[in-house]
Amino acid sequence: MAEIATIERIGQFVDEKVTLRGWLFNKRSSGKIRFLQIRDGTGSIQAVLVKNEVSPSTFAVADTVTQESSLVVTGVVRADDRAVGGHELQVSDIQVIQVAEDYPITPKEHGPAFLLDHRHLWLRSAKQHAILRIRSHLIQAAREYLHQEGFVLFDAPILTPTACEGTSTLFETDYFYGETAYLSQSGQLYAEAGAMALGKVYTLGPTFRAEKSKTRRHLTEFWMLEPEVAYADLQDILSLAEELVSHLVNSVLTHKSEELRTVGRDLDKLRLVVPPFPRITYDEALDLLRQRGMAMKWGNDFGATEDTVLSEQFDLPVMITHYPVQAKAFYMKSDPDNPNLALCLDMLAPEGYGEIIGGSQREDDYHQLLEKLAAHRLPREPFEWYLDLRRYGTVPHAGFGLGIERTIAWICGIKHLREAIPFPRMLQRIYP
Amino acid sequence: MAEIATIERIGQFVDEKVTLRGWLFNKRSSGKIRFLQIRDGTGSIQAVLVKNEVSPSTFAVADTVTQESSLVVTGVVRADDRAVGGHELQVSDIQVIQVAEDYPITPKEHGPAFLLDHRHLWLRSAKQHAILRIRSHLIQAAREYLHQEGFVLFDAPILTPTACEGTSTLFETDYFYGETAYLSQSGQLYAEAGAMALGKVYTLGPTFRAEKSKTRRHLTEFWMLEPEVAYADLQDILSLAEELVSHLVNSVLTHKSEELRTVGRDLDKLRLVVPPFPRITYDEALDLLRQRGMAMKWGNDFGATEDTVLSEQFDLPVMITHYPVQAKAFYMKSDPDNPNLALCLDMLAPEGYGEIIGGSQREDDYHQLLEKLAAHRLPREPFEWYLDLRRYGTVPHAGFGLGIERTIAWICGIKHLREAIPFPRMLQRIYP
Repeated sequence: MAEIATIERIGQFVDEKVTLRGWLFNKRSSGKIRFLQIRDGTGSIQAVLVKNEVSPSTFAVADTVTQESSLVVTGVVRADDRAVGGHELQVSDIQVIQVAEDYPITPKEHGPAFLLDHRHLWLRSAKQHAILRIRSHLIQAAREYLHQEGFVLFDAPILTPTACEGTSTLFETDYFYGETAYLSQSGQLYAEAGAMALGKVYTLGPTFRAEKSKTRRHLTEFWMLEPEVAYADLQDILSLAEELVSHLVNSVLTHKSEELRTVGRDLDKLRLVVPPFPRITYDEALDLLRQRGMAMKWGNDFGATEDTVLSEQFDLPVMITHYPVQAKAFYMKSDPDNPNLALCLDMLAPEGYGEIIGGSQREDDYHQLLEKLAAHRLPREPFEWYLDLRRYGTVPHAGFGLGIERTIAWICGIKHLREAIPFPRMLQRIYP
Repeated sequence: MAEIATIERIGQFVDEKVTLRGWLFNKRSSGKIRFLQIRDGTGSIQAVLVKNEVSPSTFAVADTVTQESSLVVTGVVRADDRAVGGHELQVSDIQVIQVAEDYPITPKEHGPAFLLDHRHLWLRSAKQHAILRIRSHLIQAAREYLHQEGFVLFDAPILTPTACEGTSTLFETDYFYGETAYLSQSGQLYAEAGAMALGKVYTLGPTFRAEKSKTRRHLTEFWMLEPEVAYADLQDILSLAEELVSHLVNSVLTHKSEELRTVGRDLDKLRLVVPPFPRITYDEALDLLRQRGMAMKWGNDFGATEDTVLSEQFDLPVMITHYPVQAKAFYMKSDPDNPNLALCLDMLAPEGYGEIIGGSQREDDYHQLLEKLAAHRLPREPFEWYLDLRRYGTVPHAGFGLGIERTIAWICGIKHLREAIPFPRMLQRIYP
């Protein structure tokens, strides 16, 4: 019996007989030869049937199988530089598992609504397949990097008792006995408790925003990586952000270059992503915007438009620091040299992709934090546990959140976040 | 300046001067010597101050610092076989970051409600710290194992449009425009779509059950690892389950033995966990229960009591297969040799810990699946996308779900799941 192989590792079996288990995604014929394009989840390969070399029934199969039919194909692996992936399969036998019905996604163009309605099938298309393999690699590379750096995984809860940053963008659910729980928008506050216990922690899980935004940069459910480090300041976290992001880009370039080619990414642009990244202050960013004719009042946070313009000015991700405190969240520490500025960073991906990271040094002083809660008109009681972290052995600490889908969209060069996650959730989309 | 070190790696700095940044968790004095127990998140060490070897103000610090005060300690690392961890620090300088207020968790016994109310601080205790480090290691070891085996991470959505297995244990939330979304109870159905696209996938994320159960084995929010494999049958998935679980136990034994000792685990019992695991059928399990005086009608699923008794019969995890179809979910494939039985498995951890895995070969035939939906009185329409997976290139496939907290509880030898996750969510508990 032939060994069962995967297309990803087909190069190990040159001139050997193997069995592949997969699906037909395309075919063509030329006289007495049939070419079947087979995918098996790990890659794709051309399987070649020559009329005189297989049984008549096997040859006939090639004419009856339809797109996405499942089949088990046996043959000899041939190295062939002209073939996609460098190999093809000289078929001796085909076992059809199922002849698929008329497959709805054809090589012709489909609109996004149709493709999203068929997301469970669209995943099989070459580009979506490549994006999801890059996603898998990127997330695992991030985890491995952080573990090597001594971080401990610290899963933050999804069901939370408080509406930390206002209830307008929160999903809520009935808990028991009349209580209400909210779906987490960030694991950060919990990660801070983790950092005080474990030193260096990270969370990586789904987060939720019930935003009525229909832009290509919004999902209602998205994954976020949030490292949090005890005894760290803004400078430490700037270095970590820069090292992590450049490591991720480099790792995808090294291990997923074929997938990047499949999605049509310009690899040269990614190869530029090497530290140090440019660092500018909010004030400098404001000047840049003004030079481009975008008048903006000091004090406001940048929106998507400003982020896009700023990120187009650089070939590398740019880190913007020292935003006005009034533009940022209550938990950020103020700059001791200028209390109007927060010790924070946003990282914008280049080429107009915009924000992929937001972070800060945290307010570690109990009394300052109380004042900040009051200034943001937040109630004290639900934050008592968070205040405890400043009562009992407070230390300087800092962290950030990296948006997984935004990072994938940038690295893959895709404009809409909906392709960066298996089943995107958007304003008008929870099916399938 | 002394190098900044972590306690975990202190062995690299014997006879060198280093700086540690952490918290005081205990202290004692003996004449002209003060012993400070310092933790830094990576481990703990005894710091020794000798009156004549430090400045009077530094020596005085040792008398004023309280439990959980944050401090930066500089000194020379000495190897000492009598010390916990094999090293101690001969202090030359202490910088106090904050003298903590009266810390609520003292070495005396506290009740579980008190500890859970202070979970954000309880995490710092030696046992909780050890469990969370084991959790971090175990999850990463599982991911690395699956990636090495060619699996692709495939994050399933949390917000889902359908109440797949009845609405009684579902959390729901208002989506937009009057729609309702449910929090996922399992990523499996989505992982099946992933397996048809990518061959071998896994999900690892939070899942939710709104069960009104107050047992030590229930959390309303828990993490689940769900591998799903195309072209796999029940036998394949039994092997995968056995290999994965034994790998996890072995990896924790190898890399986290100190943490296992901290939680008081009997390591010899874990060392037994080597394949092959015993495999019995549901019928054989029923016989075992009857021999122990537990009469049970054929056809019902086992509950926590039966699982406990069964799992006490084995030194290894036991895999129980071929349950009655009526006891199991609609998506399981029936045994072609006996359609009353499902091609399924439950894995029970030994020592009475009970179920850690549930899985099956999936129904891959379109018409059979339609019948099963009807037999379970489930509507067809919300499952149209799932039925598509049987219309377009269906293949045999199988998978399982491994409960992360249950696996951690078993490996750590703790009776209650609430200690196996940073912030447990239970019937009466969503704070902090």
